[in-house]
Amino acid sequence: MNVELRHPVGERLVRAKPAVIDCDIHPKASLKALQPYLAKRWWDYLATYGLRSRHGFAKGYPYPKGAPQAARRDAWPPGGGLPGSDLDFMRAQHLDPYGIEFGVMNPLSPSGQGEQNPELSAALAAAMNEWQIAAMTGPEPRLKASIVVPYEDGEAARAEIDRRAGNRDYVQVLLLSRTAEALGRRRYWPIYEAACEHGLPVGVHVFGYSGWAMTNTGWPSFYIEEMTEHATSSQALVTSFIMEGVFERYPELKLVLIESGFGWLPALGWRLDRTWTRLKDEVPQVRRAPSEQIREHVFVSTQPMEEPEDPDHLIEVMNWIGMDHILFASDYPHWDFDDPFLALPPSLDEEQRSCIFSGNARALYRFA
Amino acid sequence: MNVELRHPVGERLVRAKPAVIDCDIHPKASLKALQPYLAKRWWDYLATYGLRSRHGFAKGYPYPKGAPQAARRDAWPPGGGLPGSDLDFMRAQHLDPYGIEFGVMNPLSPSGQGEQNPELSAALAAAMNEWQIAAMTGPEPRLKASIVVPYEDGEAARAEIDRRAGNRDYVQVLLLSRTAEALGRRRYWPIYEAACEHGLPVGVHVFGYSGWAMTNTGWPSFYIEEMTEHATSSQALVTSFIMEGVFERYPELKLVLIESGFGWLPALGWRLDRTWTRLKDEVPQVRRAPSEQIREHVFVSTQPMEEPEDPDHLIEVMNWIGMDHILFASDYPHWDFDDPFLALPPSLDEEQRSCIFSGNARALYRFA
Repeated sequence: MNVELRHPVGERLVRAKPAVIDCDIHPKASLKALQPYLAKRWWDYLATYGLRSRHGFAKGYPYPKGAPQAARRDAWPPGGGLPGSDLDFMRAQHLDPYGIEFGVMNPLSPSGQGEQNPELSAALAAAMNEWQIAAMTGPEPRLKASIVVPYEDGEAARAEIDRRAGNRDYVQVLLLSRTAEALGRRRYWPIYEAACEHGLPVGVHVFGYSGWAMTNTGWPSFYIEEMTEHATSSQALVTSFIMEGVFERYPELKLVLIESGFGWLPALGWRLDRTWTRLKDEVPQVRRAPSEQIREHVFVSTQPMEEPEDPDHLIEVMNWIGMDHILFASDYPHWDFDDPFLALPPSLDEEQRSCIFSGNARALYRFA
Repeated sequence: MNVELRHPVGERLVRAKPAVIDCDIHPKASLKALQPYLAKRWWDYLATYGLRSRHGFAKGYPYPKGAPQAARRDAWPPGGGLPGSDLDFMRAQHLDPYGIEFGVMNPLSPSGQGEQNPELSAALAAAMNEWQIAAMTGPEPRLKASIVVPYEDGEAARAEIDRRAGNRDYVQVLLLSRTAEALGRRRYWPIYEAACEHGLPVGVHVFGYSGWAMTNTGWPSFYIEEMTEHATSSQALVTSFIMEGVFERYPELKLVLIESGFGWLPALGWRLDRTWTRLKDEVPQVRRAPSEQIREHVFVSTQPMEEPEDPDHLIEVMNWIGMDHILFASDYPHWDFDDPFLALPPSLDEEQRSCIFSGNARALYRFA
């Protein structure tokens, strides 16, 4: 397949082809594709009862209809199937032309996350994990899998991590941001414990199925407001990790925020430092300044980046977070895809670009 | 009364005594103090049914118990009564020693805001508005009142604004941040229309009674998380004003964010600009870049300010918002009071300090 690249701005980069590790690729399995990895019991159950998620589906698929499957219009495989489902097409459209050295897959659905029946949730997560290896990482060594876990049941999630982590094709544990309770709470601790035991980072991709209204003034009118909410819910999420003492309990824990943006992160650190300084007796489990914990434990992905009018402001934000904690992500094949040749601000120097494009991910995910 | 001031850092300022307009003073009326302004019908109703707010009271008073009435320990009037209720003591403790030129009062409760019975909500708001004049601005011309409105009923709120606005002792319309729906929605437009007709800014003080969970992962474990939520709910609120087209419909509208911090505001503008550029066809009512609208229509108050490690970052944030859109506020008599002599970052120059301490508020509230 011949995919032609035209980059008016990025010709130089197209020629240079920097090594790129893409930390957010969405592979897609239909339910049918998961059938070989599901017990007959669950296949029959799905035929009768279907998927029953806390909101999410009840509220409609949370993407604009103008981008079915949230996908780029050109990402539908010519041979049929959903965007992200055809490995050959993914190679031809994404992995090959951009010179992707490794791609970390974050499967969204159907993966059992948010499913109300806890055993079905665990079964679907396991099926998705097996499918990733059989259909994607086995035939394509550049692709790496995330361990999808039935996160609302901490012990079931731990068991799934223990079951998969021996296989180095799995490089992180994957959660979503909209959970039934704030992610710092104890019910989720077995996940962090298992991730640390196996040396795996925990990725939190935005979206999910909390069942709670999106803001504390209810459901917003517009999709644009939902996109803002990815940033605000991630602020609540980071706050929860810190205030519940998760990072201090699991000092090896590495948290990767995927698709939440990060322009808001320094201001959150400033705010938490100030509040914590005055109210630290409420949270004796928190012994280190919140900003220090953020900079040690939190990694962010580049897509989507906030776009300040003054590019220096973006660099300052990135410096605050740490240039070694920023990971390139394209979000392929979704509509809001970031082109590797155009995504990073031009004011970064070569070393910074190289760290963000690949060096940071190589270290975090321990790629050879 | 002799109140002694000791300011190890601020001696120079204590001597210089810059003119200060304090944009967030909380006066306190007990229900009993409002009785003269309430029809007998409502007094009897309160005796039988009490106040019935959407959460707020049901969830407990939303402040730490260690600071009863959310007050500074030294703010309880020696003669009895609640902090903020004794005008003489407020003069001696706050207005006189700090040389407060004007103080904008933001009464929180009991003011009918959040009360479920809509007529009682309107009656309590009216009573609070009359009390402010009779008990505070009448005897003390340095104090100015905010028109408390029963905001969940847009037309009743408009009527209350129309009733009060002729009296120049009222200098703004006051809302709270946690409302039943996002504040940009149409049900609240009569408030903005009336405010513009009368040339009054609309202040939104954090807290309130939405009845929705505080985050989209439910209720957080700690009070510190609730304090973070003031920033995240304000982000949703500003987004709502922009995306519903409120600022474009009411070009004279001035929105004052009180006690929400503002470190998060530039990153919100960056994020909204980027999202709007890509999805503007969803919101044809939005014709101007969100960041431009923020900088034109949004004012912020200083208490509490986020505290970056690098003070230059605070100045950059303030420059992004506009040094002419930042208003000094002390939050007197609450526990998280900001001392005027210590509140502003030392790196501001004299002109900037003077604008923030008084010039900006003088222009916004049209003080003579």
